[in-house]
Amino acid sequence: MSFKSSPFKSLDELRAACLDLPAGSDAAANAVARRQDTLTKPQGSLGRLETIAAWLARWQGRDMPKLDRVKVFVFAGNHGVTAQGVSAYPSEVTVQMVANFAGGGAAINQLARIAGAELDVIPLDLDHPTGDFTQGPAMDDEAFLAAVSAGYGAVPKDLDLVCFGEMGIGNTTLAAAISAALFGGGAEKWTGRGTGVDDAGLVRKITAIEAGLKRHTEALADPLMVAAALGGRELAAIFGATLAARQLGVPVLLDGFVCTAAAAPLARLHPTGLAHTIAAHVSAESGHRRLLEALDLPPLLDLGMRLGEGSGACLAVNVVRSALECHARMASFAEAGVSEK
Amino acid sequence: MSFKSSPFKSLDELRAACLDLPAGSDAAANAVARRQDTLTKPQGSLGRLETIAAWLARWQGRDMPKLDRVKVFVFAGNHGVTAQGVSAYPSEVTVQMVANFAGGGAAINQLARIAGAELDVIPLDLDHPTGDFTQGPAMDDEAFLAAVSAGYGAVPKDLDLVCFGEMGIGNTTLAAAISAALFGGGAEKWTGRGTGVDDAGLVRKITAIEAGLKRHTEALADPLMVAAALGGRELAAIFGATLAARQLGVPVLLDGFVCTAAAAPLARLHPTGLAHTIAAHVSAESGHRRLLEALDLPPLLDLGMRLGEGSGACLAVNVVRSALECHARMASFAEAGVSEK
Repeated sequence: MSFKSSPFKSLDELRAACLDLPAGSDAAANAVARRQDTLTKPQGSLGRLETIAAWLARWQGRDMPKLDRVKVFVFAGNHGVTAQGVSAYPSEVTVQMVANFAGGGAAINQLARIAGAELDVIPLDLDHPTGDFTQGPAMDDEAFLAAVSAGYGAVPKDLDLVCFGEMGIGNTTLAAAISAALFGGGAEKWTGRGTGVDDAGLVRKITAIEAGLKRHTEALADPLMVAAALGGRELAAIFGATLAARQLGVPVLLDGFVCTAAAAPLARLHPTGLAHTIAAHVSAESGHRRLLEALDLPPLLDLGMRLGEGSGACLAVNVVRSALECHARMASFAEAGVSEK
Repeated sequence: MSFKSSPFKSLDELRAACLDLPAGSDAAANAVARRQDTLTKPQGSLGRLETIAAWLARWQGRDMPKLDRVKVFVFAGNHGVTAQGVSAYPSEVTVQMVANFAGGGAAINQLARIAGAELDVIPLDLDHPTGDFTQGPAMDDEAFLAAVSAGYGAVPKDLDLVCFGEMGIGNTTLAAAISAALFGGGAEKWTGRGTGVDDAGLVRKITAIEAGLKRHTEALADPLMVAAALGGRELAAIFGATLAARQLGVPVLLDGFVCTAAAAPLARLHPTGLAHTIAAHVSAESGHRRLLEALDLPPLLDLGMRLGEGSGACLAVNVVRSALECHARMASFAEAGVSEK
């Protein structure tokens, strides 16, 4: 595929954009909190639904948020590190699943429909897997910036909420490698069975990640170099899309381990880099819970899912819709004639 | 209000019904599990969505479950124990909130709409609060059986899923008392701040529950006598409705602490008494988490909510819908031409 021309000519230009993020609207978030306390319920009794309403307001910059247009993007990529035998499935499954998305037969098709979300699947150069990170960098700067730009350019400004997901055989290996690179603790801490590797596959996965971390020690101090050397195109695209959403005032629902690892460099570059995101769920892939703890992102759902595709993010959309409907349409104590404490 | 004539003439008749519960369909649940393993996802990767689909099948008794008709019942009652100063709100709020439900201004109105669920609010003799359980039984057998029957008769047989909720100022005091009576551990273990009592109110609440437990020691060995002596009409109705749902093949989403405590006697009477229910969420009211643990009911959602009204149950409906849509409409590996492991 051909990418739009990159808005970022170099890692330094991209880094500058990551360091200059818009703050959310305190005024809008405070307006929501004030209104919440007048509604016919004990104060705070809607729990996270109340904070979600304020979060939408803060990042949309509107006193009364809206959810008219919700979209899920699934970015897909292929990975040279699969040569190390790190996945239970062959690489051709990535392109086969992209066809399944187009045919409406995947989980994300059903979940997007229930969520009232448009689905857009963006395959990223599937015929040309990234480099095997045990042998060299997954992407050079040019390839990395092109993938970041593909995600960055995908997000339209008229969205009210966006979900990010991914498909890419082998990509939990990248997520574990990036997590280890950004937060330390060694490969084993971050590595799980992904789509279901056996014991021998799990050992190969850990070995490959250790080799990648050792080969790219010079990259470890720079979150962008980590994403280029140890990541993949779909992860880079999620990184770019997460950055674009922040600039465009679009709140983000992150999906599972791969999606969170893809966005994580933004949190390492900027102290509030992921404040416009909610971790929609925590995956059964063990590294995800650790990564969410490291990022201080409490997950909304915990349903033992580990599918990717944006499935957990999409499942959370109706929770966000419920939060907004309660906020927008509940009566106040005064309107309903209900006695207060 | 007038109740339908009771289907249960005595506690013994009700007890007999509780001991003779239909088993779910293993065949239907197994058919779902077999189909799940052919769908285009790693086996088990949809986590609880997969077990929810099998649960629907088991209790609907259908290989392919459906969710065409979903309903939420909110039962409302008033309680003599409020004389002990156990709630932050005055008792008249119960009838005021019932009016708010009718006017569409409460949280449950918004949540039911998003869930695609019909809402039915059933006030139970609000002008005549139950007895103060510190002074005598909340209900005599006749009043208890009438309230059980009101719930039992409310559930139509053509539902595919039902949510139960409640409204009743003071009723977390009943829930804590019932939990302590059924599972032991003393009043303090089960008592929280409900709608938001202050420290002095919390002490009054614990004191009232201790007094109720002491006064009704003769009831503690019998879950039905516990529900009558320490409960309330809306709790008894939820008990009856949960029993009816089991007999009619309607899976149940339980709401928070009060709703779970209302249904709990069925689990004490029959080892699989609540197998047709899912705990839709765990409330911020601390006793609820303990009660779910005692009942071995892992909650689906954990969002810090503590509103009641069926709000948590309704919020889970779209998770159940998502589970069914994935199960019913995903393509198999063979259909989609996706390679297996």
